[in-house]
This record gives sequence, structure tokens and C-alpha cells, in this order.
Amino acid sequence: MSLVLARRMRALRSSAIRDLLTVTARPDVISLAGGLPDPELVPRERIRESADRALSTSGSVQYTETAGWFGLREVVADRESVARPTAVDPQRVVITHGSQQALSLLAQVLLDPGATVVVEEPAYTGALQVFRTAEARVLTVPLDADGMCTDRLEELLASGERPVLVHTVSNFHNPRGVTLSSVRRGRLAALAERYGFWVIEDDPYGEIWFGGPPPQPVAAHSDRVIRLSSVSKVLAPSLRVGWLCAPAEICAAVELVKQGADLCGSSLTQQVAAELLADGPWLAAHLTRIRAEYGLRATALSDAVAARFGDTVDATAVGGGMFSWLGFRDGTDTGRLLAAAVERQVAFVPGPAFAVDDGHRHSLRLCFTTNGPDTLREAVARLGDAHQALT
Amino acid sequence: MSLVLARRMRALRSSAIRDLLTVTARPDVISLAGGLPDPELVPRERIRESADRALSTSGSVQYTETAGWFGLREVVADRESVARPTAVDPQRVVITHGSQQALSLLAQVLLDPGATVVVEEPAYTGALQVFRTAEARVLTVPLDADGMCTDRLEELLASGERPVLVHTVSNFHNPRGVTLSSVRRGRLAALAERYGFWVIEDDPYGEIWFGGPPPQPVAAHSDRVIRLSSVSKVLAPSLRVGWLCAPAEICAAVELVKQGADLCGSSLTQQVAAELLADGPWLAAHLTRIRAEYGLRATALSDAVAARFGDTVDATAVGGGMFSWLGFRDGTDTGRLLAAAVERQVAFVPGPAFAVDDGHRHSLRLCFTTNGPDTLREAVARLGDAHQALT
Repeated sequence: MSLVLARRMRALRSSAIRDLLTVTARPDVISLAGGLPDPELVPRERIRESADRALSTSGSVQYTETAGWFGLREVVADRESVARPTAVDPQRVVITHGSQQALSLLAQVLLDPGATVVVEEPAYTGALQVFRTAEARVLTVPLDADGMCTDRLEELLASGERPVLVHTVSNFHNPRGVTLSSVRRGRLAALAERYGFWVIEDDPYGEIWFGGPPPQPVAAHSDRVIRLSSVSKVLAPSLRVGWLCAPAEICAAVELVKQGADLCGSSLTQQVAAELLADGPWLAAHLTRIRAEYGLRATALSDAVAARFGDTVDATAVGGGMFSWLGFRDGTDTGRLLAAAVERQVAFVPGPAFAVDDGHRHSLRLCFTTNGPDTLREAVARLGDAHQALT
Repeated sequence: MSLVLARRMRALRSSAIRDLLTVTARPDVISLAGGLPDPELVPRERIRESADRALSTSGSVQYTETAGWFGLREVVADRESVARPTAVDPQRVVITHGSQQALSLLAQVLLDPGATVVVEEPAYTGALQVFRTAEARVLTVPLDADGMCTDRLEELLASGERPVLVHTVSNFHNPRGVTLSSVRRGRLAALAERYGFWVIEDDPYGEIWFGGPPPQPVAAHSDRVIRLSSVSKVLAPSLRVGWLCAPAEICAAVELVKQGADLCGSSLTQQVAAELLADGPWLAAHLTRIRAEYGLRATALSDAVAARFGDTVDATAVGGGMFSWLGFRDGTDTGRLLAAAVERQVAFVPGPAFAVDDGHRHSLRLCFTTNGPDTLREAVARLGDAHQALT
């Protein structure tokens, strides 16, 4: 093995979550480990009709522009404009192969090896993987119930740290479940302008709210914010349609890097995504349906956890998204708990998978979207048994 | 603009071809500039039926494995096994977002900044862009009618150069049209083993042969060869399905990098590609049809060029693929010729677009697959007029 290859393998170590997903794909295991929408709530028939329509003309089989099929860029720009002080031009939207590709291209555009980036702790593992590939220096800022602790970020900056970018999952954080408060959004944007860093506002979950919508995006407060989102959680992951919305200079550089990365996305799946996103009444009804159903599941999970674990665990109030984060007050090691849980045919992701260095040994992440309420209750019963077996 | 961003923009300068494609997308221009299959020869109805079938079950809407939908990896492995001494295991196949992504991921896995790579001269521009993004040191080896001049590669190696990889488009070269001879395939493989470099055998065009199939792949001669191909030229670009076939250690590293790059490909388009590639009788008939039609077009173009330009140009005998390469013996500057041609509503790519440094000023590339014979003849007539206007 070459030296470069060996170094890459060490630096990148496979995402613990993805490896776990392979193990827990057995049909007898209830997996709350993934981050998957329920296929039954994916609008498969509507996608089928739309794909059929797209494939009735030849525009759906050819290469498309590197920055994306223009009709989709227009729809995304319209939707991104809603919560902003000024309309977003379609030229400021680049369609990517899921929002993960947006993260990856941004890292290639913005980061040299050794560059400083700030992530939330616990962090979205896909972001960590990208920043490690870029050989960035990763600093962390903790989260509390109001999202990223911007006062801690300010301390870092005051101490002389000069990050190139700060990554935040602003709505219904993965894995932590929390949402950045409106006040802190303004604060984060002001810090970005004062210190000249880019904010990557990574927002795949913002549409999946239960009680009410999240505050205006961080991007509404400053042009130093690059917003990322995708259709993976609200339409279907297999369309592989995500996007970034950024200032023109960033879009131009991302487009150049994307030429080398994959030439362009799929004109077929981009047309399907555009049709569904542009159909306002249908989309509103679809979102209402998945919000209601995922909200029921979140409540079913929370109630079951409260009934079984009581004060033993500290669970974040879930206002949307896909995840619930539990912290054990009794010192339970969630790595050990996982082994006992898998024996009882239930799986989750232990907290250390989301740690930048070490930590979160007494926490875990549960996904409540893939399974219905009864299955979630059964999963919590099995988890309770596993916990009891350890103590 | 940040320093990194500015440096990236300078290093990456947009592909001249892609910029040109934007200009020549006007309906009044006959463009021989692209590298596009004819949408009328894309099996759109079959893709439509297959997409419809895939979307009748929920496996086509979810995330898939990072290395690709296993059914597709199996089909590709079977096809890759045909011309090799031993069967290829599906674990040695990684499905990518077009073969361009395979190139890009391999560069991330194998190259540090400053690493030496060898490309053919003239070169596939997508490879150049990837190697420039990786900040590699790019050396060149010329092509002649038998493909890469392996004796010149041997001279480079004997002089002490130690490339990490050598990139070759072995069949129906883009832009040069030539095919690597069987003897040189063996020679290239032997050099790879002796000097320890990787060969990237980039083969999107191998199935599009006219007189007879190309020789056995370079990969049949050595395990130091990583083979790349895709369905873009034979099925449809919008499926965005390509692959690499490589030793296990390379596949493992590529899979890790792909997790960060985009998590996974589309389970929908991968299932469609798998169904069509696995349907042997249908695929054979489809390939026969496109070989016959593209062969007719290649002949129509060659004949028209010979009739109009005679000894003024030196044209490669075209045995397959999508491109014809013309060299002007009268000193015509093809950059100047392009300006005169666009005035007459015909477009091509001037040779310098494929130069690593400088050169090919008297050459140009014509694509013969996108347009029918009559349009190709009209294009050559306009090109002849443009040439006459210059002289």
C-alpha cells in the first residue's frame, strides 16, 4: 500500500454509523441507528409519475449543466427567497449530489491543509469526515438547548482563533436534536461579519417541524452564510438532490471544482425534484402529512423513554427533525449498552460516534422516523431490558 | 475573496470545452464541440419502463451503500470478468457518479500535492482538471496511431521519473481517436509492475467499436491497473452511473473518501442501469444498433472531410468512439478558425483545449455522434467555408 493511501485510511476511518448500519440491516433488528426517512412516507407514486413524464422527452437523458438543471435552480432560489430580506438569484444556487457533496466541494474550495474550522460538539459525522479529508484543524463549540453556544464561539475568537468557516446544523440538530435560537442566529451572523469567517448553515431538517417552524435562517442575517439543504429527508434520498446557496464568488469556485468532481448531476432526478418542489399545494399537503406522522413518532418515542427510564435519562425535547438524544445520568457506558442492545435486537448510535475527540460516552442517538409508534415502543422496551441487564 | 479561493480559481480555470458548449448551445449552431450521445439513440423508452418498475418498490427511494447498489456491482463485475484471466469479484467494483467521479476519488486517494502523474498528450480534459485540483505535477507522453507511445514512457522512467499513476484512454481516445495496440498494452502493464505505478485505464468508449472490438484491456495484463467505465455513452448520461474496478485496498480507500464526497449514489438510477446491463440479448441488440449508426456517422464525417480538405488535413482513421481529430498541414490556427466557424454557425473544439501546456494549435476535435450524416456533411461544408475565409 502506498504511503498516501495508508495515511488516508488512518485519517478517514470509516464512519462508525455507516459500519453499524451494515451490522443492523438484519431484519430481526429494530434499528434506530440510521437517519433514514420511512420509505412508506416517501411520495413514491408521485416520483414515479414525474419520472415517467420527464422520460417522455429527451431532456431527461442528456448531460446537464454543472451547476444544475436551471429549472431546479429557479425553484430552489424561490424557496430560499421566502425567509430572506432580498430575493435569491438562481445563479447563487448550485445543485449538488445530496447536500453532502455541497459540504465536500466547499471544503475543497475553502480549505487548505491545516486551516481552522469550527464544528458543533457533538458534530454531524459527515461534516467531520469532510473536514478530516481536507486535513483541517477542527475546533469545537458545545451545544445546549438553544443550539450552538455562541458565547463560547466568541471566546474562541477573542482568544485569537481565526477559523475559515463555522459549521452549524441550525435546525433540529443531528445528533443533538436542538435548534439554534433566533438571538444566537443574529449573534453568529454578526461574528461572521466581524471576524470574516464563513458560516455553513447545514439545514436538511428545517421543513420537518412539529409544533411550529424554526426561526428565520442564519442566512437571513448576513451574506457570510452559505446555506445547504436537500430533498433527501422530505422527498427521497435516491434523487440525490441537494444544493448550496452562496455568494456568487463561492458558487463560481464550487462549479469549477464540481466539473472535476463529477461533471454534472442527473438531469432526470433534478427534473423530478423540480416538479415536486414547484407544485406548491401538493408539497404543502405532503409536508403536513410527514410532519404529523413523524411528530406522532417523536412523541411515541419520548413518552416510551420517559415511562421506561424516568429520571435515569435526560432527553432533549424534540421539536422536529429525525433524532432524539439521550444522556444517561447513571453513568451507563453507551458503547457497552449497544452490545447488550444488539443481543436484544435493537440498535442505536452511541454518543462517541459524534465526538470530535472523545466524549459523549453516556449519551446515544435514536432515530424516530424510520419506524412506526408500536415498533418504537417495542424498541424502547428492548433498550430498557438491555440497560437493566447491565446494571 | 479568500486566498485559497483565489488560488483555486486560478489553478482550475474552467474547462474551455464546457465554456464553449454554453456558447454553442444556440439552436442555429451545428455543434461538433460536445461529447454527447445522440438523445435519439438513448434507449429512453427502456429506461422509462425500468424506472417505472424500480419505483414500484421502496428499494428505489432510499439511500444505498456507498460502494453502490450490490446488484449493479455484480453485473459490472460479470462484464469486467469477460476479458480477464480470472473472474472479478463484485467487492472489487465501486459504483461512482459517472466515471469522472471515479477519477476524482482516485486522485484524492492516491495523490499528495506535488505527486507526479503521467497523462497522454493531447489529454482528456476531465483528467487534467482532476490532477490540477490535486496539485499534481503532470508529465506527458505523446500518442501516435497506436495510442500512447510506451517507449517514450519508458524513457521517462529510465530518466528517474517515478509517477504515482499513468492515465490512459485506451480505446478510441478522447480527443485523439486512436486505440492502444495490444503489444503496447502488455508493455504498459509490465512497466507498471516494474516501476510500481498505477495505470488508470479510462475506458468509456470501448463498447462503441465499428470494424471490430478493441484488444483485451490493459487490466487483463496486470493487477496494477484500475479500470474505469460508465453507462453514459452507451445508455444515458443522466443515469450518472460509472464505476471503477480495482484491487481491494484501492476500493476500500475510495469507499471511505466517497462517504465524505456524497454518502452514496442513487439507488434508482443504479437499479435502472443494472437491469439494462444485465439484459444480455437486449443490450447486444442495442449496442449493435448504436455501433452501426455511429459508424455510419463517422464514415460520413471522414468522407466529407476528405472530399473538402483533401491533403490539407491529416485525419485519424476512426475505429470507434465519438471523436475525430484533424491536423491542418497548412498551418491553420484552429483558435482563429473557430471564430470564423462560429460566424458560419458551426462549432468544434480547438486542439489547445487538450494541451497540457501549449500546443496542438493546428489541430481540432470533431464529435460525430450527436448529429446525423446530413448535418455532419453540412457542418463540414461550413467548416470548409470558414477555412477558405481565413486563407
